[in-house]
Amino acid sequence: MTAQGAGRTPDGPGAARNLNPERERAILDAVLELLAEVGYDRMSIDQVARLARASKATIYRRWAGKAEMVAAAMHGLAVEHQPMPDTGTLRGDLAAGLSMFCRIYERKHAIVLGLLPAIRSDPALGRLLHRHMLKSGADEVVELLDRARARGELDREPDLTALVEVTKALLWHRLLLTGEPLDDGFVARTVDEVLLPLLRAG
Amino acid sequence: MTAQGAGRTPDGPGAARNLNPERERAILDAVLELLAEVGYDRMSIDQVARLARASKATIYRRWAGKAEMVAAAMHGLAVEHQPMPDTGTLRGDLAAGLSMFCRIYERKHAIVLGLLPAIRSDPALGRLLHRHMLKSGADEVVELLDRARARGELDREPDLTALVEVTKALLWHRLLLTGEPLDDGFVARTVDEVLLPLLRAG
Repeated sequence: MTAQGAGRTPDGPGAARNLNPERERAILDAVLELLAEVGYDRMSIDQVARLARASKATIYRRWAGKAEMVAAAMHGLAVEHQPMPDTGTLRGDLAAGLSMFCRIYERKHAIVLGLLPAIRSDPALGRLLHRHMLKSGADEVVELLDRARARGELDREPDLTALVEVTKALLWHRLLLTGEPLDDGFVARTVDEVLLPLLRAG
Repeated sequence: MTAQGAGRTPDGPGAARNLNPERERAILDAVLELLAEVGYDRMSIDQVARLARASKATIYRRWAGKAEMVAAAMHGLAVEHQPMPDTGTLRGDLAAGLSMFCRIYERKHAIVLGLLPAIRSDPALGRLLHRHMLKSGADEVVELLDRARARGELDREPDLTALVEVTKALLWHRLLLTGEPLDDGFVARTVDEVLLPLLRAG
């Protein structure tokens, strides 16, 4: 997995149409607020413009449409986190990193619920979100695993794709379906019974 | 379908509030149909009764309320499957079993989407469903793993809880969020990169 432009928002053809970061942040915050409140299908660009005090023209210059705005907003939410703490052990780093993801995902919960009906009727939206959400955090995980290898705690390059997919799946499963808390017990069990075994499997 | 209602022999208190299996099946099928169509919040016992041609009294004698009916319906859907095939190898059994679960979960998809908003506002409903869904399939998986141990393919009692949670989480993550297919590629990768490593981890 190559590390690439962490923090950078992947752009379509309109790449040059940058807004100043504060304006962009205000618009994307409005998108997140409306998603959680009224859901994707009922959210309009008009509402976004009103809430963010921006013009529709500004919005359309920057993003091709609603799906792209939502993807950018979700991406922003995903990368808005501290670097993962360096605790000195693989187990400690995994627990600290997983805790951090738990907090981020809890914040995304209402927003993702607002998107689910639209994902169902528009698979392209699902794929777009998936691309943005999949990347988030991968660079930090690579760093964490590099440190473990440097300390001799891991002897091979682990399969990052499976590790990331399993972790995200476990978090969403609890948030969306079972309602079980993403607490310290969950973090400890997931590290000991899932993540470390996957990392150490031959 | 047998007529039922006014002419039915009166039950004693708790007279095993069982319905005949055909009637019960018809009512639970109506529940599943309505869940997928209108969702949990908008589904009424009246609608269920009408669609299943049952009386509300019959329904209330058998189940305490909407949540219990839904849990029973989801449970019925979960156990409605063939025994897992015995392919002669752990890898083959896992792949065949996972494929079977993929088909069952695909059928549950629309129903679970209809439940999500209600799970959000009613955590007790989420826990109830979780209990019913968690049980489903566990016995078959135990059997599959016992066979593997008898063949010498596994040398210890594996952690079934983590295995089942990870599997269900991966399926729902794809169905609800990423929209990626539950195809043969997914089955093969999940068996090789997640399930076998978890089972074999020391």
